[in-house]
Amino acid sequence: MTEKTTEELEQLRDLIDGVDQQLLHLLRKRLDLVAQVGAVKHGAGLPIYAPEREAAMLAKRREEAEAIGIQPQLIEDVLRRLMRESYLNEKDVGFKQVREDLGKVVIVGGDGQLGRLFGQMLALSGYQVVSLDKDDWQQADAMFDGAGLVLVTVPIGITCELIREKLSNLPNDCILADLTSIKSAPIEAMMEVHSGPVVGLHPMFGPDVGSFAKQVVVVCHGRDSDQYQWLLEQIKIWGARIVEAEAERHDKAMQLVQAMRHFCTFVYGLNLCREGVDMENLLQFSSPIYRLELAMVGRLFAQNPELYADIIFSQRESFNVISNYLGNFADALKVIEAEDRDTFIKQFNEVSQWFGELAPQFRNESRAMLQSVNDLKSH
Amino acid sequence: MTEKTTEELEQLRDLIDGVDQQLLHLLRKRLDLVAQVGAVKHGAGLPIYAPEREAAMLAKRREEAEAIGIQPQLIEDVLRRLMRESYLNEKDVGFKQVREDLGKVVIVGGDGQLGRLFGQMLALSGYQVVSLDKDDWQQADAMFDGAGLVLVTVPIGITCELIREKLSNLPNDCILADLTSIKSAPIEAMMEVHSGPVVGLHPMFGPDVGSFAKQVVVVCHGRDSDQYQWLLEQIKIWGARIVEAEAERHDKAMQLVQAMRHFCTFVYGLNLCREGVDMENLLQFSSPIYRLELAMVGRLFAQNPELYADIIFSQRESFNVISNYLGNFADALKVIEAEDRDTFIKQFNEVSQWFGELAPQFRNESRAMLQSVNDLKSH
Repeated sequence: MTEKTTEELEQLRDLIDGVDQQLLHLLRKRLDLVAQVGAVKHGAGLPIYAPEREAAMLAKRREEAEAIGIQPQLIEDVLRRLMRESYLNEKDVGFKQVREDLGKVVIVGGDGQLGRLFGQMLALSGYQVVSLDKDDWQQADAMFDGAGLVLVTVPIGITCELIREKLSNLPNDCILADLTSIKSAPIEAMMEVHSGPVVGLHPMFGPDVGSFAKQVVVVCHGRDSDQYQWLLEQIKIWGARIVEAEAERHDKAMQLVQAMRHFCTFVYGLNLCREGVDMENLLQFSSPIYRLELAMVGRLFAQNPELYADIIFSQRESFNVISNYLGNFADALKVIEAEDRDTFIKQFNEVSQWFGELAPQFRNESRAMLQSVNDLKSH
Repeated sequence: MTEKTTEELEQLRDLIDGVDQQLLHLLRKRLDLVAQVGAVKHGAGLPIYAPEREAAMLAKRREEAEAIGIQPQLIEDVLRRLMRESYLNEKDVGFKQVREDLGKVVIVGGDGQLGRLFGQMLALSGYQVVSLDKDDWQQADAMFDGAGLVLVTVPIGITCELIREKLSNLPNDCILADLTSIKSAPIEAMMEVHSGPVVGLHPMFGPDVGSFAKQVVVVCHGRDSDQYQWLLEQIKIWGARIVEAEAERHDKAMQLVQAMRHFCTFVYGLNLCREGVDMENLLQFSSPIYRLELAMVGRLFAQNPELYADIIFSQRESFNVISNYLGNFADALKVIEAEDRDTFIKQFNEVSQWFGELAPQFRNESRAMLQSVNDLKSH
């Protein structure tokens, strides 16, 4: 590099440093203003996530960007990232309490990750939260006394048994709810032992989300839905979207969404391990899409095996779904063995047609994701 | 909402609008300054992507952010997104030409997507680029006359045949290179028919990347590497990283990275289609992680089946790799059928140990990705 080049680059980099200083202060200012919006919303009990307002604001910014020669997607991506930060900060303000005269909330399994998250959100909304765990059953009666909501979040394998054996003596008007990832059996058990309001919830996210904003919570109604309407409102205020579903339909979807998916990922990792694959070598050759896929596999194995065993073994029907998949896999492999390229292409086209409009939509969605993934790469 | 709340929110939103205006102008200013850096680099022939400089700049910004109470990750994410935009804009300036006296570049298959991308990059770097496609073989001799580089990028299935039949009469000092996703067979064919410099390249990315920045290009050396060193330098100037590999080792990795992976994705889509799954229902229940996975599957079916047939059928050994996977799948399914939870957990732990430090690393990486995915959600 010549001296002149070095000098020119230095000068420009100083100017960029200056712009970045201004940028930092602007971000600080925006976060503060949005925090003030949060405080006003908090006072008025409005949800922190307002999709329409957000869409309108982004549309306006995109226009303004275009007018000064900036790609609209750039400002949208930057603002979405800023909004995420603001959602995370909402927690510092707390949330409006929808129901003030509820009495205690008892979280059965409150020391688990999901139990802690819900306990934290409820406490931030002004509720008195008590955690009941393995060692607390001797004081259970005292804990349940005066409870307005009992929330069950224990491993799937013991949920129904625990409900039947331990929760038959709750106050009549207390709401009994659970957070299990299957819904039919727990709701049946809750309806059996409790004569008051019953509701099944399934938060469709892991306990490591920073915020409820934009997340989905599935609700399967049990009994006396007017009694727990406030709870659904409360969850909306935290930013989540409530999706109502029939328990059976939900459970059927979970065989595919959870059991089969996790099982496939498990086998994928098992296969890499048994093949004695050299991961360093593999990563060296990996494009962003494949690195992402490997990360999704490795992610599973950084977590608790019990959790995945619970999900995979919880519904007997999942075995059938996985068996069918294996059958399709074996069939398709025969096509490869026979080097029958034409049949492969014919089947490919059938699936494309079946995906219809979703295939190109997924293509665009995944392109945006892959670009974000590539942004993260630092070498 | 009370009138007072509405009014307070309006006022705050006006202030946010004002901040966003300033933000837009600051982004414009930063993009312009980085474009000037690009122009200086262009003049000096420096690569557009400088990992160390980037890392140092980000570390400084993170510190400054922390000092004013901003999460360091926020400014890093915003700046990475801005840098992506700047890389994309580099194309408008063009790139320094490393070798000025090369003569023509002939791209065999230049009308294909990857051919067009390389043609565009070479033209932006000052080379005279000619595309040779199916209908041009009658003028081939005239086109090859005076060529300094012939770059082959045709479907895998016909690559070797085409090299052997059509490329045996190139000028002696011309570089013969290919972009095929397998490397042993094409390099062997090129070495056979051409006595001059030979090199195999495999760009580890799809033709829809906006920029070469941070992408990987695998290089398998053929003959006279000093003669094509300039080409590798040129690719680095575009921002890509060059990874050298033995052809056989590369091809073996591709059986897993490409053939098996794409085949699994294919079967996953086939299975959804054959099960007659209600996608709308499934998407409603999908958390970000599962939506991402579905998008990765749907993405495949928005693309050309020939391309995937080429990849899956190109190496006979891929069949064995996929067969082994099927065997592991069937074994693991027996564990589920027997409801043998203990064996499942034992195997899970074995794989976790095998992943070692990579499992938590992948967990963190995928968390960042999932957060980006969630940012994109607009409803």
